[in-house]
Amino acid sequence: MSEQSYRIEHDTMGEVRVPIDALWRAQTQRAVENFPISHRPLEKTQIRAMGLLKAACAQVNKDLGLLDGDKADAIIAAATEIADGKHDDQFPIDVFQTGSGTSSNMNANEVIASIAKAAGVELHPNDHVNMSQSSNDTFPTATHVAATEAAVTDLIPALEHLHKALAEKSTAWRTVVKSGRTHLMDAVPVTLGQEFGGYARQIEAGVERVTATLPRVGELPIGGTAVGTGLNAPDGFGTKVVAELIKLTGVDELALAKDNFEAQAARDGLVELSGALKTVAVSLTKIANDVRWMGSGPLTGLGEIALPDLQPGSSIMPGKVNPVLPEAVTQVAAQVIGNDAAVTWGGGNGAFELNVYIPMMARNVLESVKLLANVSRLFADRCISGLVANEDHLRELAESSPSIVTPLNSAIGYEEAAAVAKQALKEKKTIRQTVLDRGLIGDKLSEEELDKRLDVLKMANLDRER
Amino acid sequence: MSEQSYRIEHDTMGEVRVPIDALWRAQTQRAVENFPISHRPLEKTQIRAMGLLKAACAQVNKDLGLLDGDKADAIIAAATEIADGKHDDQFPIDVFQTGSGTSSNMNANEVIASIAKAAGVELHPNDHVNMSQSSNDTFPTATHVAATEAAVTDLIPALEHLHKALAEKSTAWRTVVKSGRTHLMDAVPVTLGQEFGGYARQIEAGVERVTATLPRVGELPIGGTAVGTGLNAPDGFGTKVVAELIKLTGVDELALAKDNFEAQAARDGLVELSGALKTVAVSLTKIANDVRWMGSGPLTGLGEIALPDLQPGSSIMPGKVNPVLPEAVTQVAAQVIGNDAAVTWGGGNGAFELNVYIPMMARNVLESVKLLANVSRLFADRCISGLVANEDHLRELAESSPSIVTPLNSAIGYEEAAAVAKQALKEKKTIRQTVLDRGLIGDKLSEEELDKRLDVLKMANLDRER
Amino acid sequence: MSEQSYRIEHDTMGEVRVPIDALWRAQTQRAVENFPISHRPLEKTQIRAMGLLKAACAQVNKDLGLLDGDKADAIIAAATEIADGKHDDQFPIDVFQTGSGTSSNMNANEVIASIAKAAGVELHPNDHVNMSQSSNDTFPTATHVAATEAAVTDLIPALEHLHKALAEKSTAWRTVVKSGRTHLMDAVPVTLGQEFGGYARQIEAGVERVTATLPRVGELPIGGTAVGTGLNAPDGFGTKVVAELIKLTGVDELALAKDNFEAQAARDGLVELSGALKTVAVSLTKIANDVRWMGSGPLTGLGEIALPDLQPGSSIMPGKVNPVLPEAVTQVAAQVIGNDAAVTWGGGNGAFELNVYIPMMARNVLESVKLLANVSRLFADRCISGLVANEDHLRELAESSPSIVTPLNSAIGYEEAAAVAKQALKEKKTIRQTVLDRGLIGDKLSEEELDKRLDVLKMANLDRER
Amino acid sequence: MSEQSYRIEHDTMGEVRVPIDALWRAQTQRAVENFPISHRPLEKTQIRAMGLLKAACAQVNKDLGLLDGDKADAIIAAATEIADGKHDDQFPIDVFQTGSGTSSNMNANEVIASIAKAAGVELHPNDHVNMSQSSNDTFPTATHVAATEAAVTDLIPALEHLHKALAEKSTAWRTVVKSGRTHLMDAVPVTLGQEFGGYARQIEAGVERVTATLPRVGELPIGGTAVGTGLNAPDGFGTKVVAELIKLTGVDELALAKDNFEAQAARDGLVELSGALKTVAVSLTKIANDVRWMGSGPLTGLGEIALPDLQPGSSIMPGKVNPVLPEAVTQVAAQVIGNDAAVTWGGGNGAFELNVYIPMMARNVLESVKLLANVSRLFADRCISGLVANEDHLRELAESSPSIVTPLNSAIGYEEAAAVAKQALKEKKTIRQTVLDRGLIGDKLSEEELDKRLDVLKMANLDRER
Repeated sequence: MSEQSYRIEHDTMGEVRVPIDALWRAQTQRAVENFPISHRPLEKTQIRAMGLLKAACAQVNKDLGLLDGDKADAIIAAATEIADGKHDDQFPIDVFQTGSGTSSNMNANEVIASIAKAAGVELHPNDHVNMSQSSNDTFPTATHVAATEAAVTDLIPALEHLHKALAEKSTAWRTVVKSGRTHLMDAVPVTLGQEFGGYARQIEAGVERVTATLPRVGELPIGGTAVGTGLNAPDGFGTKVVAELIKLTGVDELALAKDNFEAQAARDGLVELSGALKTVAVSLTKIANDVRWMGSGPLTGLGEIALPDLQPGSSIMPGKVNPVLPEAVTQVAAQVIGNDAAVTWGGGNGAFELNVYIPMMARNVLESVKLLANVSRLFADRCISGLVANEDHLRELAESSPSIVTPLNSAIGYEEAAAVAKQALKEKKTIRQTVLDRGLIGDKLSEEELDKRLDVLKMANLDRER
Repeated sequence: MSEQSYRIEHDTMGEVRVPIDALWRAQTQRAVENFPISHRPLEKTQIRAMGLLKAACAQVNKDLGLLDGDKADAIIAAATEIADGKHDDQFPIDVFQTGSGTSSNMNANEVIASIAKAAGVELHPNDHVNMSQSSNDTFPTATHVAATEAAVTDLIPALEHLHKALAEKSTAWRTVVKSGRTHLMDAVPVTLGQEFGGYARQIEAGVERVTATLPRVGELPIGGTAVGTGLNAPDGFGTKVVAELIKLTGVDELALAKDNFEAQAARDGLVELSGALKTVAVSLTKIANDVRWMGSGPLTGLGEIALPDLQPGSSIMPGKVNPVLPEAVTQVAAQVIGNDAAVTWGGGNGAFELNVYIPMMARNVLESVKLLANVSRLFADRCISGLVANEDHLRELAESSPSIVTPLNSAIGYEEAAAVAKQALKEKKTIRQTVLDRGLIGDKLSEEELDKRLDVLKMANLDRER
Repeated sequence: MSEQSYRIEHDTMGEVRVPIDALWRAQTQRAVENFPISHRPLEKTQIRAMGLLKAACAQVNKDLGLLDGDKADAIIAAATEIADGKHDDQFPIDVFQTGSGTSSNMNANEVIASIAKAAGVELHPNDHVNMSQSSNDTFPTATHVAATEAAVTDLIPALEHLHKALAEKSTAWRTVVKSGRTHLMDAVPVTLGQEFGGYARQIEAGVERVTATLPRVGELPIGGTAVGTGLNAPDGFGTKVVAELIKLTGVDELALAKDNFEAQAARDGLVELSGALKTVAVSLTKIANDVRWMGSGPLTGLGEIALPDLQPGSSIMPGKVNPVLPEAVTQVAAQVIGNDAAVTWGGGNGAFELNVYIPMMARNVLESVKLLANVSRLFADRCISGLVANEDHLRELAESSPSIVTPLNSAIGYEEAAAVAKQALKEKKTIRQTVLDRGLIGDKLSEEELDKRLDVLKMANLDRER
Repeated sequence: MSEQSYRIEHDTMGEVRVPIDALWRAQTQRAVENFPISHRPLEKTQIRAMGLLKAACAQVNKDLGLLDGDKADAIIAAATEIADGKHDDQFPIDVFQTGSGTSSNMNANEVIASIAKAAGVELHPNDHVNMSQSSNDTFPTATHVAATEAAVTDLIPALEHLHKALAEKSTAWRTVVKSGRTHLMDAVPVTLGQEFGGYARQIEAGVERVTATLPRVGELPIGGTAVGTGLNAPDGFGTKVVAELIKLTGVDELALAKDNFEAQAARDGLVELSGALKTVAVSLTKIANDVRWMGSGPLTGLGEIALPDLQPGSSIMPGKVNPVLPEAVTQVAAQVIGNDAAVTWGGGNGAFELNVYIPMMARNVLESVKLLANVSRLFADRCISGLVANEDHLRELAESSPSIVTPLNSAIGYEEAAAVAKQALKEKKTIRQTVLDRGLIGDKLSEEELDKRLDVLKMANLDRER
């Protein structure tokens, strides 16, 4: 840095040169220089949550009479700007930093102090902005606020949107009969509506899964300060801050941690959430794979459905169009599964009063939530909603499957039915013709009954009672 | 096999030689020969669940008038013996087999037919024992029955047992003060009771986590037969079988699947459960690691607690005793985390109407449940309950931590407090002495107040209101 | 145990009741009782390696004059029986035990002492059988001997066998043309031989991968005793024992560890090997998936090849036959990938002079090697070798792919070619006809040239020089 | 976009609005709009490799007389600018896109065409820039060039740098004796030099591991075009391009793929490399954990060494300094392990002629390489090199360990030695005193011999021959 371009700041370890226009100060700068590793900052949702938390803490410190009204209001104003995304560029520290996120907590404290100073209010980053707090309760609290808010306001609505798109297809295709496939082999008929109903249920269950983890993900350790004892925080601080956070976010799933020692020493709630996200990724993979296989071809594959054309598919094969959205979906799923492994590793390796893998865990959980939410919306809007069924081809396939012999089991027995299926396949005849050829019409099976049993749509059993 | 040692059985593909005393028949034998891979059979809990399911199905087939009373009763009798573990050796097929578990379903059908035959009742494995069923609904159903039953009757009680042991220590050690550690570095005091309270909460949350997945794990696809349509099953079959299964097991968490297509094509419920088990594994790892670090030494480590001696620790170093149970715990945790990766892989790779990774997924989930349950009980009984605190040493450490300067922040400011801590460490003096040396007694801090603030047990803040 | 059924043994911690016929003694029995967790003993390959190692150590102790010839010979005789698998039932300790494997090392020492005693030679398990050794060098050494031997004598030959089967199909199907598929969509032609050549190369590369890890997997820490310093072992002990092990196994890849501290404190070599095994699992997954998709149908899928019938495929759909071996392959692959996660977890969590996840890591690595070896042989013999190509159908598909327009790019340009492909698809005409319809025959493209360029087998470019 | 801010471009699917100053064109823009998922572009190393590859291909097309010299030179000039990082901002497409990377290949083609146009040369993105190429050979080729170059020029030198720092400490601390620890419990002595020698070997082995994968990672499929057959590419194209790439990069590890079908359909080389990276991550974790445990305290932990102070450690506890670099190291390791799981998932899920998880796999492998390289350098320079040993404290601990009784085994037997150790611990006496107390001096053990055997540095056996 040239002399003109920096200013001198200091902290308890001495002087540091900081870029002249930066709102951050000494401790942030030290961390910037200590950790040039991924060149990737915290997720925006995490920065927002730190802003929300600092505002909430200042409000409570003011309400409790610990902090002057002017000072508190200045913190709240600055922190709110941060929460609103106006200072994302003032959070330059790498994700891979101290495992407590202390550097990022101090980053928030310093930026708030500088914004306040510009507005004429002098604040000490530690004594005022961080009052009644420690990195060890604020950084995990912000992480869980971010994860809970993102789950509730981003992921779950996105999944519900995808669910709706799938359910609509299920209804529209209720009677579009096709061949079932088990082990990839010809099986008895189903309808396309039944298949998409199954996909819709997978996503609905995904919402249930994510929701089921929130009682623990939403637990916030604020008030525990350095080691969970709440040393240097006033009685009732955590309870009040949580109430404030619920007010600021509208997210009712937030709650004071049941036990501060658990909630600072372990990050199990993130591991649990990540496990649920991974399950959603698995569901999306199944659906995206089925969709692209059904759309395979157009002429050498299954050719059951057509996907919307989104972009040219090949730099060499003219006219080729590929299932690019299902591919994006399955790549996102792979990433979420990988992120889960990173989160699990971090979660299992804490010690004593603090887990020190928090920034890394936060990155992975928050990225997973974001990726799943974004890709679910795109999948619904640019793929599922525009699918077109090749109904005639589907019915043709359904009728050609040798497994449609199955409803005859109770009339002719499993072993004779197997013989029919094998002979039909070998002689390239229909099941119906082969039944006649083998002289199976008689007491147990009339020709009328045979036709009734071989009705493929009927086999899909749409009106059965379970 | 010598001529004397086998008999001839047949199926739809022809003749097979079967060991003369085996209760299984042709299809089982084919699978035994097709899959000499791991030489490891299904988990016993899975075999039990197949027995329970076959009994329940026979009862419902009888109630619906589809199956003669004699035949049904013979199936129920034989299946109950299987459920009771009397024929585990008649299930020789490898875990790594057809991905639907069809071979194992037929194994159950054949063994039941043979037991019935010995009792004088002729049954066809497909037409009678498998009546109204398919491998594609029975094998997943049995898997989820096994997983749910094992979670409810084995794992959750084991975790509650461990929780109790930890909570008792938390109470007993409520006022045993020690140094907190964050980033492994000296921090402000906590009590051993607070730490064990945190561990207890981790395990309690583990119970909540596993429980939260059961509404989906307990969903059973029975009644869907081959592809989910219920072809060849009577109306109401699934509902009635589930009711029967609840009666047989007493496990209320079992329920009919919300959607048969989802419940046969996907195995997401197992992935979700596995994610929760993995989270429990992470919790156990944290606790076991802390315990063995606290017990490290006796003379060159932390030496804060003593673990019960279970066995000589070294074949070369006389008198050495090691934390062998925490080691077993953390190895189990690693296995559960590995099993989860296998389950996830399987879960994500189904296609169309059937996921074909079921036996592998079942092995991993059921093994994980069993390992966690067994090791949790042992950990409680042979390690946690017998821990002894070295109270004097713990207090000494608490008082030596330079971080006990923290309560002085509000009196002397964070920066001066940092100077005190650094000087004390450098001069090998106490915090108290250094405060006096630096002339900090005065208006803001009397000597009496200093002593009050430096009381380490008080710093643990046992009576605070959160 | 009833009074008749046990005898009293003792160790440094006191008396223990041991089953009267057991060859093991006090320390084994303690471990049996301490670890009723998985009820699964060590892998047989691990027990064998412990036998080999104990024999080798006794030989060297004898050669160095530390151990009486009679005693040494008794150890060698007993240990050789163990290596030959004659006493597998005398190793009852659970995999999930002390993380050093001390219990299993003592198990070997005790069983050897008992066998020798029955032959009239008195040996002390520690002072004689374990002479110059510690669990901390023997158990890792045995693990790496087992892994290396299993890789060299079991897995690599099995992969070479599979490679051969795939390469034979590649040759046999050199000119069997078919439609290529990228993104699952119709692409330009390839031959079935080219595809199987690719599979063969994957497996060949798998052999290279596993082989590339052996210089480190084969490193043995024997001679390092308790902490790597070799305390209580004579100079040159490790070097001599390794030479002996090479003689006993014929496995030249075994070598003395480059650094004993690394080789006892870390188990990185197993993690590396496991990563290579995982890569082989990924290769197998790709091949098995392609094979089962090509074989999908017979009538509603791709129907390109037929797999050998191995067993009836459905308990409800008569005549159905499924790709059960590819399913076993992909389930094994999932397990290997899961095992790798467990191995990685264990590998990353050692501390100071010893990693204490060894029995768990050994289980997973050795199981993975065994599963891959067994399933590769079965895949070759019962699936790949018996595949039959539906050549006419394959050529039909190749000719129907709209992508065969690609060779016209250089004559008519990418954009016009795209227009041809789209029109052909829309009008359900051939590419050839559409080119004529659009009046593209002229200077740049004669009809003769058109036909030359549309020859699908030619497009496969079999004779090109790369 | 306002009317002023865009221009109209077109491709085979129609018109697209593109930002007016963008160098990219229609297909890039479509992809930007199709994939707003992670908002994260490709890794810079990947963009560089695409530049290098486009330059190499143009050179070869020119040399073969397929492409006019002017056109080729314009491509080379533009592509070289891209390789030099001058146009990174012109690659806006999300990582999560079409799985072939077609969009990014076209992005490169379009940007090169625009740069050339600005220089007065008209190029068609497909017909000229992409000449003799397909996304299906170029994108994997660029990925493997990037991975190989990053491994060779970034990661391996960084690991060698770390190795050197560790080895220097090993030499400096050759005779600094300390207590060994196995199972975290007091064991026989080692020296700090021995421990750091072990760490150095771990990193050296890491270099070997990464290097061992390069023969396959460096295999490039260029020349295979769409499906591996090389359709539309001239004979010898691949070989010549690879030679050009070696010239441009100086990376000799690059080579033509042994089999184009393997090298386009599978991405096993990346999975293998990722497995090696994961192993390096495991090694780093072990070292970083040991270092932070040794540095734990300063007063309530082990206090064996002191780490350099890098930044204030706590926002609440004054004077606290934490092991922040080891924490960054272990978080990076967790990320690399997570990335590996994502890579493995992608690698296992290709189908037929193309794996469609390439951009995601590339992101994870290239990020892992970068993270490991960066953090290894920082770890060496800002942590390892500045470590200070507390030599007196280390020796004190060594002498206090009860395990120093071990060298007496051969004189007094393992069982008596165990009794000595236990009594010493109980009576808080030294081993020496307890030996005297128990009257063990005599024929087998003189007092002089006793003292010789109890010399802790001697126990470290520095001069032994292995």
